[in-house]
Amino acid sequence: MRESANRKAFAKISGAAPVVIDVQPAIDVVPGMARNIILTSGASMPWERYYGGQRAAVLGAAEYEGLASNPLAAEEKIRSGEIVVAGCHDYGCVGSLAGIYTASMPVFVVDNPVSGNRSFCNLFEGKSPFRLNYGVYNQKVRDNLIYLQDEIAPILGRVIRASGGVELSPIIKRALHMGDELHSRNTAATLLFNQKVFPALMKETKAAETSANKLYEYLSGGDYFFLRLSMAASKAASDSAHGVEGSSMVTAMAFNCHDFSIRVSGLGDDWFSAKLPPVAAKLFPNHDDSEIEFMGGESTINETAGLGGFAQAAAFPLQEYQGGSVDHMIQMNLAMYQITLGEHPEYRIPYFSYRGTPTGIDIFRVVESGQSPVMDIGVAGKDGGQIGAGVLTAPVECFQQAVAAYRERYVS
Amino acid sequence: MRESANRKAFAKISGAAPVVIDVQPAIDVVPGMARNIILTSGASMPWERYYGGQRAAVLGAAEYEGLASNPLAAEEKIRSGEIVVAGCHDYGCVGSLAGIYTASMPVFVVDNPVSGNRSFCNLFEGKSPFRLNYGVYNQKVRDNLIYLQDEIAPILGRVIRASGGVELSPIIKRALHMGDELHSRNTAATLLFNQKVFPALMKETKAAETSANKLYEYLSGGDYFFLRLSMAASKAASDSAHGVEGSSMVTAMAFNCHDFSIRVSGLGDDWFSAKLPPVAAKLFPNHDDSEIEFMGGESTINETAGLGGFAQAAAFPLQEYQGGSVDHMIQMNLAMYQITLGEHPEYRIPYFSYRGTPTGIDIFRVVESGQSPVMDIGVAGKDGGQIGAGVLTAPVECFQQAVAAYRERYVS
Repeated sequence: MRESANRKAFAKISGAAPVVIDVQPAIDVVPGMARNIILTSGASMPWERYYGGQRAAVLGAAEYEGLASNPLAAEEKIRSGEIVVAGCHDYGCVGSLAGIYTASMPVFVVDNPVSGNRSFCNLFEGKSPFRLNYGVYNQKVRDNLIYLQDEIAPILGRVIRASGGVELSPIIKRALHMGDELHSRNTAATLLFNQKVFPALMKETKAAETSANKLYEYLSGGDYFFLRLSMAASKAASDSAHGVEGSSMVTAMAFNCHDFSIRVSGLGDDWFSAKLPPVAAKLFPNHDDSEIEFMGGESTINETAGLGGFAQAAAFPLQEYQGGSVDHMIQMNLAMYQITLGEHPEYRIPYFSYRGTPTGIDIFRVVESGQSPVMDIGVAGKDGGQIGAGVLTAPVECFQQAVAAYRERYVS
Repeated sequence: MRESANRKAFAKISGAAPVVIDVQPAIDVVPGMARNIILTSGASMPWERYYGGQRAAVLGAAEYEGLASNPLAAEEKIRSGEIVVAGCHDYGCVGSLAGIYTASMPVFVVDNPVSGNRSFCNLFEGKSPFRLNYGVYNQKVRDNLIYLQDEIAPILGRVIRASGGVELSPIIKRALHMGDELHSRNTAATLLFNQKVFPALMKETKAAETSANKLYEYLSGGDYFFLRLSMAASKAASDSAHGVEGSSMVTAMAFNCHDFSIRVSGLGDDWFSAKLPPVAAKLFPNHDDSEIEFMGGESTINETAGLGGFAQAAAFPLQEYQGGSVDHMIQMNLAMYQITLGEHPEYRIPYFSYRGTPTGIDIFRVVESGQSPVMDIGVAGKDGGQIGAGVLTAPVECFQQAVAAYRERYVS
């Protein structure tokens, strides 16, 4: 049964055809979202356990959304239950670093017509290392969020709608042939997306040249715009494979400021958690390892769906960004084939003679091989902001717990 | 002396900073161009020696330019000297496949302010395999050339001028990190160029939305748009290194329908020629090797300047287009370091841990090592049109002749 269940789960995750159809405020499109909800990354925890940048990001979000006038007031309202802190994944969303969704923030709406499910991701905040999702909230961060919400999101939504939606898999497939692994490197995918929406953007220029120019600057201002779309695409693919009775395939990997957690297709919505491991990071100049702080992260949904660390041999230029050698990247990427159920039919790696990316992590294979998933992540600093990038290796304990739960549930 | 001359030539070719500044009819910008001149690829030959697709392309060009009403009349005028057939390189131009420049055809104008020289390349004819430069001239080819000349070239020139010119080296540098080697693969470079000119293009839309849309379709309609720009950039770099007294560095490789030829920095404008070798090609479906026909080609200027076959380890996706394996591509690219004077300071290959591309072919190193330059080329068919792509290995005889000429001139 496990085998056939896994075949089904693998078919779902690798056969997804996610399409971004719109950009709308979270409150209008995310099922269950409410004015007083703040979503953050990783398995949900009691409020007391959030610390550092992830805690700061949630408090900043409360202030940004007008739910509290300062961090202290926000703390009180969270304790009293007036403000609810919840996990992104439980709302069809995925968080980059600390995550952070409030009701009025714009989100990409991504449909997966193959399985009829829908997922969401919020927008890249831009090139500044100081961003709410990296644990910083100040006037500059606030101004930028308002700019995204009032200036960028409305026209981006119009342009995506006028384009009839944009299919994400073909972009991901091509970007894998152009040096991207779609997690720490999104350079080609961002250009390819821009190319898709420019005809609609040019039509916009007649009506409102200023906002079209702003959008153009936003779209071409950094190479990470597309990360949020690949995340939503991976979420849509992974969610479509969730809930397959008997499947031991991982459908989410995420972390909060304490724990790394996984979800498994055949094991319901339980998270299997373990203490966060250290990250092998290459830091920006003038930073050192003592500054590294975990403040959540769900962009590892990309590795869950066969991208990022599972496609790093498609992205040798990553050496410059997150360190490591070509040989090590190849070796790590190859190791992921040991722990996955199959090879993605569309996402392929030129260096491996177009072999499909290793897709669909099997908790049994991880435990039996002792090989854990590797993930390409952005690294945040204690003072907030991004200070580098690196490779995270999942703690094997989550997978051991999941195997135990699987054995208990599906007495073999 | 040879050593210091070669140091100078290498510094010129690798230190060039080509900028495309305009698109104009050849007659208005190419020095020495005249209404009755047709430029074609490779070392110039007596008219009788041109055959097949290259001959057909020249005759088609005469008709296109209104110099003759049919091929027979064109032949007569060429024989009588009324129409002059000359080599692209002698006019600062480079020909793709058969080449083919007439007075009214639009060309990119590329300046290299570092050395104060200028070069030209005409425009990619579009995705159809049937193009004048692949030996085909009919109503469809003619209509397309007129479309390029009347619709695309004027707005492309305006947009490039409004952008203040576009620096080509930074685009090439980035594209090498995105799977391009800039000869048979130009996917990323084309997107990066588009990104540079879109702000100017959006401003155009107010005035003339139709032509802007046409330009957008042209720019994004194929991944080879940028090839003509990388060719002009390589020509500008190579020309800037030509004429260094005592240098044994190659400054051009080109072929006509008979011969493969090279020029050498310290040996004036003489071509050293040898019979064309066979090409190792991967053909489009429903074609076979017996259809392959050489009809000229100067895009090998890119290999001369450290791109194309000299950067193929940056472009593993080429496997699908021109055949070969990853290992063979790596091995061929590495072999080029044996025959070159240095490594390009800006053009680097991620797979080789960002080693600079092998740049500046030394005729002595080729002859002494027995290793010939390899080039990524498009392959034409006997009936005209492109039928595939492949790898051409230069005949060593050209280099032997050049070494003999060098020894004679610079009695050692």
